[in-house]
Amino acid sequence: MKTEKFSHKIIIRIRIECPIQADVFSRIKKTLARTGIHIDETVKIAATKTKAVYDLVLFSESESQFVSALETLKEIKKVKVLLIQDEILQLHKGGKIEVVPRVRLDTIKDLRMVYTPGVAQVCTHILHHPESAREFTSIGNTVCIATNGSAVLGLGNIGVLAGMPVMEGKSVIVRQMAGINCVPLLIDSDEPATIVTVLQKLAKTFSLIMIEDIAAPVCFEVEDTLQSLVPIPVFHDDQHGTAIVVLASLLNILKHTKKKMQTVKIVINGAGAAGLATARLLLNYGFKHIVICDKAGALYAKREQDMNPYKKSIAEITNPEHVQGSLSEVIKNTDVFIGLSGPNVVTKEMVQSMNKKAVVLPLANPIPEIWPENALKAGACIALDGRTINNALAFPGIIRGALDARTKRITSVMKFKAAETIASFASRKQVVPDFMDLDLHRAVAAAVKKAAL
Amino acid sequence: MKTEKFSHKIIIRIRIECPIQADVFSRIKKTLARTGIHIDETVKIAATKTKAVYDLVLFSESESQFVSALETLKEIKKVKVLLIQDEILQLHKGGKIEVVPRVRLDTIKDLRMVYTPGVAQVCTHILHHPESAREFTSIGNTVCIATNGSAVLGLGNIGVLAGMPVMEGKSVIVRQMAGINCVPLLIDSDEPATIVTVLQKLAKTFSLIMIEDIAAPVCFEVEDTLQSLVPIPVFHDDQHGTAIVVLASLLNILKHTKKKMQTVKIVINGAGAAGLATARLLLNYGFKHIVICDKAGALYAKREQDMNPYKKSIAEITNPEHVQGSLSEVIKNTDVFIGLSGPNVVTKEMVQSMNKKAVVLPLANPIPEIWPENALKAGACIALDGRTINNALAFPGIIRGALDARTKRITSVMKFKAAETIASFASRKQVVPDFMDLDLHRAVAAAVKKAAL
Repeated sequence: MKTEKFSHKIIIRIRIECPIQADVFSRIKKTLARTGIHIDETVKIAATKTKAVYDLVLFSESESQFVSALETLKEIKKVKVLLIQDEILQLHKGGKIEVVPRVRLDTIKDLRMVYTPGVAQVCTHILHHPESAREFTSIGNTVCIATNGSAVLGLGNIGVLAGMPVMEGKSVIVRQMAGINCVPLLIDSDEPATIVTVLQKLAKTFSLIMIEDIAAPVCFEVEDTLQSLVPIPVFHDDQHGTAIVVLASLLNILKHTKKKMQTVKIVINGAGAAGLATARLLLNYGFKHIVICDKAGALYAKREQDMNPYKKSIAEITNPEHVQGSLSEVIKNTDVFIGLSGPNVVTKEMVQSMNKKAVVLPLANPIPEIWPENALKAGACIALDGRTINNALAFPGIIRGALDARTKRITSVMKFKAAETIASFASRKQVVPDFMDLDLHRAVAAAVKKAAL
Repeated sequence: MKTEKFSHKIIIRIRIECPIQADVFSRIKKTLARTGIHIDETVKIAATKTKAVYDLVLFSESESQFVSALETLKEIKKVKVLLIQDEILQLHKGGKIEVVPRVRLDTIKDLRMVYTPGVAQVCTHILHHPESAREFTSIGNTVCIATNGSAVLGLGNIGVLAGMPVMEGKSVIVRQMAGINCVPLLIDSDEPATIVTVLQKLAKTFSLIMIEDIAAPVCFEVEDTLQSLVPIPVFHDDQHGTAIVVLASLLNILKHTKKKMQTVKIVINGAGAAGLATARLLLNYGFKHIVICDKAGALYAKREQDMNPYKKSIAEITNPEHVQGSLSEVIKNTDVFIGLSGPNVVTKEMVQSMNKKAVVLPLANPIPEIWPENALKAGACIALDGRTINNALAFPGIIRGALDARTKRITSVMKFKAAETIASFASRKQVVPDFMDLDLHRAVAAAVKKAAL
């Protein structure tokens, strides 16, 4: 099992002018390769008898690596760098989503049907038949994705504004994979009660509320309280989306490694939203040996240090052997490591201390607990990070299924069925299927809908 | 000056099958016309040697009129009605707006640039350069339109859900005329403090907040308090959009009627959001003789009955001659009637009691204070309702201009310039220009931007 190549963090487009001599352009490419930079794309833009202009898309590990490569490049005679452009920033320019009409507005007659006075007829219809609002407005196919920016990816508390690119990214995925309108909402508050009030008051606008990138334990309180107040599903993808794709992965991993659900030993690093929800879903599904670790080491019943009610409650139902100690101790002789914490906390030695056919799933984003290639070098038989085991496999279909069933909440059974469907779509050599497969998302939606009805 | 034909409230598509005999289809058309129904569209769908199938789009004044027309139709031999479909409901089905991607997501590489891990680079950039959020997310080109459904069109307090079709209609217009993303938000609360909190906490998501169809006086408190708390413009279109198009109309009406701003006598019926804001803008612009009426009659300084702080404050600066009495008394010997109240409150007699070259602008939606054709019959020289004098002439350009200038609030000067620009786009015979003219909206945006800078 291999990881795909995309660990580069910076993508830059450069435009260079160079003399047309057979060796100059190949020297440029060699120079870049030598500094560790990957050339993803080469396009010749223009040429005269003596000079040519090329656009190169470069993948680089860091800004400093790129800057030093550029310096080396400039040492080649008569090579000029005409333009340097950050490709990712460029892609995100102007935002990744837009709100557009579904109706034509070409004539004054159109205006009078879309807007006043015609629209009054639709308002009146909904007034007398409130349930028809889902049919005659966008509400039936619209969800929101709300964050306070307090736990964005693995970046932490970067604030609502800096969280927006992730919200938009998710909105793009929900739309493309499930055909659903997804409206990002930035809620500038760390108070659970305030976040709940804002979303409760807005709930009639949407058919489902996603909460996203809100730090634990605030996210638990928001989800529980809000769900008790509104008649539409509240879905915290960081918790449940993650839990579902991890469960899906484990179903196939058990097959690949010929291990058993009842005996496989799992350590989850991270007692935040994703860690606790994953542990809970795996337990509910039937896994027995799960130990959760956080910075203070293994969670166990009666631990006193750095606890909260949510950790306390999960400590009582996990860790049946009352293991104590730090991750490096706890990980010994386990079968599966699931990382839902932060960058670079797992060493090769830790992987080497695991059981045979060890599976390492370092899912922290954008930098995993250990790079999968290093885990494989240390002897893991499967190592996949968040680029492969990604919530995006789950959430579009779950939301679509919940909307199609008009369900009021997402139940455990719906989550189980989503995970089983995802697992079933993986090819024989895969742990999880390809995200781009639209049939996958349709199948997840159908399974979730069926489970809801 | 004429009003356009579109007073019909119900638009129905019927599909009929009839024998191919020269006179049958013309009998059908005559029958419908006799019952007062207007045939807007006729399409032959299919035909055999003996029969033909037609689709007809019918405009009707009321459901009962349509039903009785249909009965008459069935009496014609061998005519079958195959389908009856409400055209307006049909148009609004599924909602009028959608949220769609601006980026492509075709490959797993796209996913990794749009979403994790690539998106982390954009988040980090915004974290260090918060002002760049307007550039690298949709925030810079996104506004919200928030309502609590307490004063929807002329329909009154129909609740948030039934208010949605209007929000979506406005969103369509803002997008098509000004290229701006407009997100509807239904806020289920009548408490000004709650509405303010919800919008204040969400403010970072948007570059401007529109509030809409919120009843007075709650709307005034929401607008004032919210504007003092957020660094982006808060725009209540029912107040300021209406005030601006009325001002624009009056500028041309003064020309057409050769009356003067200093001496023209204006009566505004309605002391809600639109009425008070219009009076204030006209006063600020230089109009002198304005009397506002509500159900209790003319507003005057020291009136005790049915007052609130907002009415009280405007009563002190309008009605210089301390006129008292009901609308039918107050309207006597005035030059301009501006209706911002409800259906059918103006009689022909009232119009007859006005000065020569009387102007009647009954702007209540969907049913005006008096149908313009009746006002004209009663002797008005100009009579135009909300189908012509419509906020939609103003708000797209105002919002575009405010966003382009990155202004923190909408000032009086910006409103004046918007009104003057709208007035200047009317042809010599018009009071206001055509809404569909994109150049109009661009010019309003440019004027507002210039006034802001």
